[in-house]
Amino acid sequence: MRKKIVILGSTGSIGQQTLEVIQKYPDEFEVVGLSGWENTKLLQEQISFFKPKITVVKNEAIAGKLKRDLNRQNNIKILWGTNGLINIATLEEADIIVVAITGMASLIPTFEAVKRGKRIALSSKEAMVVGGELLVKEAISKKTKIIPIDSEHSAILQCLKNEKKDCVEKIILTASGGALYNFTETALENVTVEDALNHPTWKMGKKVTIDSATLMNKGLEVIEAKWFFNIPADKIEIVIHPQSYVHSMVQFIDGTILAQIGEHDMKIPIQYALFYPNRISNKFSRLELTKIGQLTFKKPNYTKFPCIKLAYQALELGGTMPAVLNGANEIAVNAFLNKKITFPAIPLIIQNTMKEHKPKYNPNINDILDADYWAREKALNFCQKEK
Amino acid sequence: MRKKIVILGSTGSIGQQTLEVIQKYPDEFEVVGLSGWENTKLLQEQISFFKPKITVVKNEAIAGKLKRDLNRQNNIKILWGTNGLINIATLEEADIIVVAITGMASLIPTFEAVKRGKRIALSSKEAMVVGGELLVKEAISKKTKIIPIDSEHSAILQCLKNEKKDCVEKIILTASGGALYNFTETALENVTVEDALNHPTWKMGKKVTIDSATLMNKGLEVIEAKWFFNIPADKIEIVIHPQSYVHSMVQFIDGTILAQIGEHDMKIPIQYALFYPNRISNKFSRLELTKIGQLTFKKPNYTKFPCIKLAYQALELGGTMPAVLNGANEIAVNAFLNKKITFPAIPLIIQNTMKEHKPKYNPNINDILDADYWAREKALNFCQKEK
Repeated sequence: MRKKIVILGSTGSIGQQTLEVIQKYPDEFEVVGLSGWENTKLLQEQISFFKPKITVVKNEAIAGKLKRDLNRQNNIKILWGTNGLINIATLEEADIIVVAITGMASLIPTFEAVKRGKRIALSSKEAMVVGGELLVKEAISKKTKIIPIDSEHSAILQCLKNEKKDCVEKIILTASGGALYNFTETALENVTVEDALNHPTWKMGKKVTIDSATLMNKGLEVIEAKWFFNIPADKIEIVIHPQSYVHSMVQFIDGTILAQIGEHDMKIPIQYALFYPNRISNKFSRLELTKIGQLTFKKPNYTKFPCIKLAYQALELGGTMPAVLNGANEIAVNAFLNKKITFPAIPLIIQNTMKEHKPKYNPNINDILDADYWAREKALNFCQKEK
Repeated sequence: MRKKIVILGSTGSIGQQTLEVIQKYPDEFEVVGLSGWENTKLLQEQISFFKPKITVVKNEAIAGKLKRDLNRQNNIKILWGTNGLINIATLEEADIIVVAITGMASLIPTFEAVKRGKRIALSSKEAMVVGGELLVKEAISKKTKIIPIDSEHSAILQCLKNEKKDCVEKIILTASGGALYNFTETALENVTVEDALNHPTWKMGKKVTIDSATLMNKGLEVIEAKWFFNIPADKIEIVIHPQSYVHSMVQFIDGTILAQIGEHDMKIPIQYALFYPNRISNKFSRLELTKIGQLTFKKPNYTKFPCIKLAYQALELGGTMPAVLNGANEIAVNAFLNKKITFPAIPLIIQNTMKEHKPKYNPNINDILDADYWAREKALNFCQKEK
């Protein structure tokens, strides 16, 4: 029996690569639902090829346009908005929900899918950063799994495979260092958007590329790692590894380090998540360490890149604080991309927002959404003051 | 119940480090047998501390001396020679036999121990190189395991842990490159014994240090890897990694590479073998990749170091050929250490010896011993011609 897959965010980079992987294994997977938000041209192509039964777009108007474009060739059900996303994320027949939509929009459909015991392949960082506690609790009670799709957490999952949890001494998350790692503190003050978007190894969206440059990306991954692997923050370490071939490592209580190494190819962790816990043969290009020649490692500079410390603080403070960190960060990054604030103002705005927040503990979904909303408003105020 | 341990070769480097590890876990292990060959002073200290019931030395004269030295303080049974080694290797009450004696002498006691279903922790390369086929067959039929103690095979074992065998694309054995890796071909012709003994990372005995310099050491490890992990030779690759921190790697069919990384400390693989499959906490020093800074990798130069190819050939030809490779190598290395032949003559002598051998297939122990004896005699002849 083929596994039935729903992809939330099929027109994004991870969504498209997920479909590329699925296309290689037609006997293994059947696509039953796709959500594509605004890019109806691509969504239409995906629908023609994979023939899902249901699709979701941003709003009713886009749904109407898609319906006309599909020209009755397809009797697909077209839904829209958050309710549409919840609908396909909880589709009775679906086995795996791939969550690859940007931003906070991932939280509610992921939570609803976990509540129905669906297996999740999670690319959207935000869901785990703001709702990790809640999601993991729910997944345990529903006896289902949330499998990471990003390269770092997939690497950790592979290093931990079948090792006992109490054998872990620490998790070592690798970070490329982003576009600005070698800039001086003075140079960082005058960084342009173009500088910050010039990522050395991975090609990604703008938001996450800036998060790489501030190292907030790695901070968010620390929070994710805590929830994915139930590891306390003081056992999660960040190491700068500019070549990004060692995707992450685990150090065990006997001093052994296991590292997962490979090409810069998201199809590898996507495939791993879809087939977990099995490894399946593929023809993706292979890394040759002798061609690369060297792998380098250094400690992160927390003075130049304070976002990491903010993430550790948010994790330590707990409750709704990670949601505030995440919300304030999104606003600050957006303001930087729109040239409203400088690069060093990003951590300042997040820090100021966090300072004014009293975290609520054991939050439910609505508490998290409230904290996110509050943080965005607050951060926007701080951004306006910066001008 | 404490596990009962016998150590063959307790006064050698691995034997001593094994006792160091055992000493840290007095509730886990009891030493019931020790063999020490000639170094009675150290053996006597080990006997006083660990109180084994039985010990083995080289010959009756040394046994007599040890008895006098122990001065009736200890009613230990003292045996000698190969029969003595077989005796403690098959001790009824023993759970784990650590085999850490030099050279071919390891083969027979290891084989006898496996025949009684003992678990083996194997450091002695020769046993697996010359008798791998036999040992592994016997271990499977007796439902016991032979666990590697050297850092490379321990690394591979850890990377393979609970992965399916048919998921392995290749094994990547790392090699420091030895003392002479950067010498030119011309310079290699005039290499002195002192040059060749100047190993960059590991401190080891003379024979294995020369094997490192010729890269035969890695060739022998290819043969071991084939038998330890039942992987064909064309799926075993060698990579030069001068820092020796990545102890070896496994590449899987999905393109993922897992690497085992750690300090230059044999106590780590020794402990892993003793407790396998469990990881146990220790206080050995930890590797800090950010202090090391870089790990480098390059392809081996088979023209400068032909011993690797000879080992692959011996494995391909099979039967008694690996025993011939090993025997001829021991003679050639010994001749080089005694300044009877040049460094580049080592592979020539091995090659010439192999050329004259017709391998016997599915050899039994005696066939292997005959081939070894034949090879030594033949190689000695070639060494004398070299002069």
